[in-house]
Amino acid sequence: MAKIAVLGFGTVGGGVARVLEENREAIAARLGEEVSLKRILVRRFRESPWRDRMTDRIQDITEDPEVSVAVEVIGGVDAALDYTRRCLMAGKHVVTANKQLVAEHGRELLELAEEHGVRYLFEASVGGGIPLLHPLVNCLGANRIEEVYGILNGTTNYILTQMTEQGESFRDALRAAQEKGYAEADPTADVEGIDAGRKTCILADLAFGQETPPAEVPMEGITRLDLRDVAIARAAGYRVKLLGRTLRLPEGGYAAYVAPHLIPEGKPIAHVSGVFNAAVIRGSAVGETLFCGPGAGACPTASACVADVMDCLAGPARFRFRWGKAGGLRDAREVVSRWYLRTGAGASAVLAAFPEAEVLLEEGGCAFLTGPLSGYAAETAAKTLPVLARLRVLD
Amino acid sequence: MAKIAVLGFGTVGGGVARVLEENREAIAARLGEEVSLKRILVRRFRESPWRDRMTDRIQDITEDPEVSVAVEVIGGVDAALDYTRRCLMAGKHVVTANKQLVAEHGRELLELAEEHGVRYLFEASVGGGIPLLHPLVNCLGANRIEEVYGILNGTTNYILTQMTEQGESFRDALRAAQEKGYAEADPTADVEGIDAGRKTCILADLAFGQETPPAEVPMEGITRLDLRDVAIARAAGYRVKLLGRTLRLPEGGYAAYVAPHLIPEGKPIAHVSGVFNAAVIRGSAVGETLFCGPGAGACPTASACVADVMDCLAGPARFRFRWGKAGGLRDAREVVSRWYLRTGAGASAVLAAFPEAEVLLEEGGCAFLTGPLSGYAAETAAKTLPVLARLRVLD
Repeated sequence: MAKIAVLGFGTVGGGVARVLEENREAIAARLGEEVSLKRILVRRFRESPWRDRMTDRIQDITEDPEVSVAVEVIGGVDAALDYTRRCLMAGKHVVTANKQLVAEHGRELLELAEEHGVRYLFEASVGGGIPLLHPLVNCLGANRIEEVYGILNGTTNYILTQMTEQGESFRDALRAAQEKGYAEADPTADVEGIDAGRKTCILADLAFGQETPPAEVPMEGITRLDLRDVAIARAAGYRVKLLGRTLRLPEGGYAAYVAPHLIPEGKPIAHVSGVFNAAVIRGSAVGETLFCGPGAGACPTASACVADVMDCLAGPARFRFRWGKAGGLRDAREVVSRWYLRTGAGASAVLAAFPEAEVLLEEGGCAFLTGPLSGYAAETAAKTLPVLARLRVLD
Repeated sequence: MAKIAVLGFGTVGGGVARVLEENREAIAARLGEEVSLKRILVRRFRESPWRDRMTDRIQDITEDPEVSVAVEVIGGVDAALDYTRRCLMAGKHVVTANKQLVAEHGRELLELAEEHGVRYLFEASVGGGIPLLHPLVNCLGANRIEEVYGILNGTTNYILTQMTEQGESFRDALRAAQEKGYAEADPTADVEGIDAGRKTCILADLAFGQETPPAEVPMEGITRLDLRDVAIARAAGYRVKLLGRTLRLPEGGYAAYVAPHLIPEGKPIAHVSGVFNAAVIRGSAVGETLFCGPGAGACPTASACVADVMDCLAGPARFRFRWGKAGGLRDAREVVSRWYLRTGAGASAVLAAFPEAEVLLEEGGCAFLTGPLSGYAAETAAKTLPVLARLRVLD
């Protein structure tokens, strides 16, 4: 019988307790031993069927030789970082769903884990319940990873779906998301692309083996997105999705950024709606594989956390699961793609600036797609036109 | 330096050699050691850059203490079964892409592997390059698996895409598939659903822990599919796809079958086109996750084989990866779903037999969707009508 602890007992902590209880048999059958929740670290005690396992002292976990894994679901950095360090130094494996902590301190914590002969795993930090990091590192381990991109934030995907399918404005869709509990009272981290950006950094760290500091990754959210562009794109056979994207550059190094994209509707990822997440991994041997599922929620996130717990209990690390210092990250404007632009200028001015332009709509100005251009080239060429909207196209 | 052998040197065998060569560095970085191809078992020698590694004696592999893993890509049962047994008994791990062998002899071979302290892995046997079995068992190991279904055969999906997108007949689309090398000269195993059926059995074996004999699984292919029904379904917002499906039944036990389905176009899997494969895994905690990618081809299949090789080399099995004797498989007609029916009868006769029917088209008969019905009930009710087509709806 393996014993674990949960640090923090909010939505995901409760989900971990529930999944361990409800799937006790399935877990024991797979792992060959039962897993039980011995300790729950809380800040304030409260009435709960789990009351007898609660403690407010981290020492009750770090100093308990029976506890072999701690699941950190506190979130944020301060206390989470402190407790994670203390658990790792005490020889406990740590599993987390905390994307901010992994994006900002992952390299240090993975090194600390290695020093102490334990593991630090965070499948739930990207894509919630979707198996993504494990397939990236293990199942696609025979590939040179070329690119990873995805719909990494369920809140913004819900808002975009409402805008696209129901024609709602950003403001109305955000209010609906808040009423349904999909968006926080302060939605900044979601709608400004920061949450998706942290996840993009983690994907880049693992895909390219180098620390990708969130502060160096351009993150554009959906607050400046205009319903008009969503409609024009739709009529032209594209869906608009907020993508986090990281990819090798032909001239060496890699880029990472978050921005809304036009996605051709022939691609399955264009049809990932509502609070679902999805990611595409492009490998040198396999080509493109898509992974899709619930990107948040108590039980899906717990599904990934408990799988990581089982992985820790099953034995030592099998594959290299860490990254080195920052190095190869380049300016995201080096990435070449087609662009969607809307301008107040007419088609003749557009074709003068962008001879390859494909005009989608002429109506008090002009909306069009460019040929393949770097971000620099798109910026420069657009200076000759009054640009009202500029979005990348995923080719 | 780990050394492996390949048994059979057709398309996939060549892919394995190529992936090992091209991704040498990525593999060594992940695994912590290099992997090299020492021996290739062939029936007839031929000129090749690999000529010096070829042998026609299995003993050169089973008796070579340096070889730790054999990749069986012979296909079929006879020689493949014999050589797999001999390699396992000689203490070599065996990795395969051979769905027929796994579906028919998987339980025996997994037991034999366990007896000899080695592993038998077959990620490439279902979904080609898509990580599917590993996520099912490991990443979703905290779930009770409720259902797995998917587009498991690229040839038929290509044919169906041509029928749906280009309005081609089955016969024309099959000819095009053969010309492009997607279909064999004898396409029976693909178009009759047998290949998808074998893969469905493997998914059921792993999901429900019981041997699922292919002979007991109803397999319906696409040869009887009428373009008219594809068009009517399309107009009603559905795409027609051949699905292999296995699921727990509410009254206990599980079912498995292969048949064409109507899929609502809001689901991403409805947009998986051409030779791509996809599978949905439904787990008690995570809900539905979708995995999608290239289901065949030399390099994608080799991507999965080499990942399995790396898994064998990295250490002993971590999770239960085997299944018991047959037991809980029930008649697939117990599965309840809506149905699409086309009949020569008019709407009034239809509504008399199926009061919940949703009529899609009235034109020299009637095409309609039923309410939720078991296969038995659909059969019985349809006896009162001259049924021209009957397809399940995926709800």
